[in-house]
Amino acid sequence: MNTSPYCKPQFNLSEDTHYFCGHSLGAQPKSAKEALMQSVAEWENHRVSGWTKAQWLELPKLCGDRIAPLIGAHTDEVIVSDNTTLNLMKLLFSAIASKNNRKIILTEEGNFPTDLYIAQSVAKLHNMTLKVVPRDAIMDSLDDAVAVVLLTHVNYRTSQKWDMKTLNQKAQHHDIKTLWDLSHSVGVTKLSCTNLGVDFAVGCTYKYLNGGPGAPSFLYVNKKHQHLHPAIQGWMGHEAPFDFAPEYQSAQGIKRYLSGTPSILSMKALYGALCVFEKIDLAVVERESNQLTQYFIEQCAIHIPALQCLSPFDASQRGSHVAFRHPQADKLAKSLIERGIVIDYRTPDLIRFGIAPLYINSHDIDVAINHLKALLYSP
Amino acid sequence: MNTSPYCKPQFNLSEDTHYFCGHSLGAQPKSAKEALMQSVAEWENHRVSGWTKAQWLELPKLCGDRIAPLIGAHTDEVIVSDNTTLNLMKLLFSAIASKNNRKIILTEEGNFPTDLYIAQSVAKLHNMTLKVVPRDAIMDSLDDAVAVVLLTHVNYRTSQKWDMKTLNQKAQHHDIKTLWDLSHSVGVTKLSCTNLGVDFAVGCTYKYLNGGPGAPSFLYVNKKHQHLHPAIQGWMGHEAPFDFAPEYQSAQGIKRYLSGTPSILSMKALYGALCVFEKIDLAVVERESNQLTQYFIEQCAIHIPALQCLSPFDASQRGSHVAFRHPQADKLAKSLIERGIVIDYRTPDLIRFGIAPLYINSHDIDVAINHLKALLYSP
Repeated sequence: MNTSPYCKPQFNLSEDTHYFCGHSLGAQPKSAKEALMQSVAEWENHRVSGWTKAQWLELPKLCGDRIAPLIGAHTDEVIVSDNTTLNLMKLLFSAIASKNNRKIILTEEGNFPTDLYIAQSVAKLHNMTLKVVPRDAIMDSLDDAVAVVLLTHVNYRTSQKWDMKTLNQKAQHHDIKTLWDLSHSVGVTKLSCTNLGVDFAVGCTYKYLNGGPGAPSFLYVNKKHQHLHPAIQGWMGHEAPFDFAPEYQSAQGIKRYLSGTPSILSMKALYGALCVFEKIDLAVVERESNQLTQYFIEQCAIHIPALQCLSPFDASQRGSHVAFRHPQADKLAKSLIERGIVIDYRTPDLIRFGIAPLYINSHDIDVAINHLKALLYSP
Repeated sequence: MNTSPYCKPQFNLSEDTHYFCGHSLGAQPKSAKEALMQSVAEWENHRVSGWTKAQWLELPKLCGDRIAPLIGAHTDEVIVSDNTTLNLMKLLFSAIASKNNRKIILTEEGNFPTDLYIAQSVAKLHNMTLKVVPRDAIMDSLDDAVAVVLLTHVNYRTSQKWDMKTLNQKAQHHDIKTLWDLSHSVGVTKLSCTNLGVDFAVGCTYKYLNGGPGAPSFLYVNKKHQHLHPAIQGWMGHEAPFDFAPEYQSAQGIKRYLSGTPSILSMKALYGALCVFEKIDLAVVERESNQLTQYFIEQCAIHIPALQCLSPFDASQRGSHVAFRHPQADKLAKSLIERGIVIDYRTPDLIRFGIAPLYINSHDIDVAINHLKALLYSP
């Protein structure tokens, strides 16, 4: 059994790069670059016949097939399309359609901004209410007035992770649809969408899935909801796009969630990037993530007391990045980046270290700790 | 003055390739491949800092700036984002919002299917009626009950071109918003969106703009409508995306029409492809397109009477592709493709020849005519 998922040589990352931003934009897998080169050659040589000869038309599904096992879903429950904002919109419409007597979309205050913005849009279009409550009020707010609860599994700032099983159970008890944003957990956490009865989910592919800048997003729809008519009718979601029928007839299954023509070049890079995960056991990745983030938090507590850890100490409640508060967080981030420790800063006083176990190990953490010591405690 | 826009050496197209599918997927400009290679290097070397160091965040606007002169718009009226279906949705929402007492979206029967599908979606969400009438009934249907008229400038089947000026004038007289789909005209026709008072427009960039398979779409919003609040609130359309504010505050101007994170790799290829147009006068391209399509139609009338031309004989009413009916169109298309004449087939009995004057000249047309003669009239 493979005891470590570490495979930095599969990435275009030099040995001395300590890249702690996999939670924002994943490093470049060699397989992504190769696939992208291939798509350039396909366009050059096949031109329009690439749609069939190079399977471009199938790419949204082929990418979905590779993502499905990473989120614990059946392959016919996942497809890649558009971006996370737009997929959230499509799935909110569906979640509402199945419960249109209820008037509340429930979410938490600290959710990722675009999730809040698009939920507002959908609520407005349907004369519904977007109810935004503090994180610790979510469980008590799950009642029979709520149509859908929209949550991000791992919080982008704090790394706090929802107990998806407990939340789903209470939601199901009240017949509330669940819509999970998996952007900050997919690829570093073992997910079980189908087993836990998740209704709908979306996720970003350019973070721990390393799909490239702005790589298209995936969406998951539980089989039991795939009969719903899509609110956004697009050409590629039609049963027979090349019949050019004036009337819309939705495709069977998950394909109905496609919109217009997909961005093939970007999608091909993602398809290549996902190769990396084909031989990887996500339970092993999650265990490694837990150990590395724990080690980081403990080392910081010992050596860098000036940093206030915002992420949970209990690994089961934590995603794969670690966030710290510091009054001069902005300046600190800049100095670390200058020293080759690539992290990011979030207003007003946060620095985040993403621990992507495919290319971050304890040595990287030791180097980061040493630089932090030097920056904060050297005379 | 340059008398011909022909610049095939700027494309990755061999001398003996006669590519008549520029109306479907444009050939690959060398500059697009170079830009894409550059974006791969940016991802590899800059990783997350590419968003600022490589100007990824600015790409939707930078691409818009290059498209604006091609459609006769100001640079602050155009941006690149998502696909045509989704941009149509966004602009239909806006067009309706500015006229929300009227209940009709007007369009024509033969419009491109995805335009019809998404217009149905928007009509349904707003309890409006999508009124679909035959092409020759459009002018008479422009009355005070219509909120917005949605038309494709050049028809994807027949190549019939709307008289945009006359239609806009009548629409304006009835205070109807115009939404033009320029997918089949941008890059081969001199357009004057601002001068003709077009309210809204979208267009595809992978046809005559050669942006690559599934290249992202552009949208145009006349300055006078840019105060409208976008119905689809996305992260990248926020005034300050990196403040991560829980409340949505739309960006000033055209940026508010962005949704989530843009597909950078695909957009970069488009950005490169648009270089080709920097030294090209579209009036010259349009004149050449008129002459070549005219020559093709005339040669067919003389030598290939078995083909029934569906495209207008009057160049002012025609786009840059020519469509013919033939009872065995499917078989004919296959045979031509086998002989290196790349065209396409549309059900039930149509073949289309796209004349992209940047890489198609009269020699290509002669070769095509000779193959048609051989296929249809040789013993």
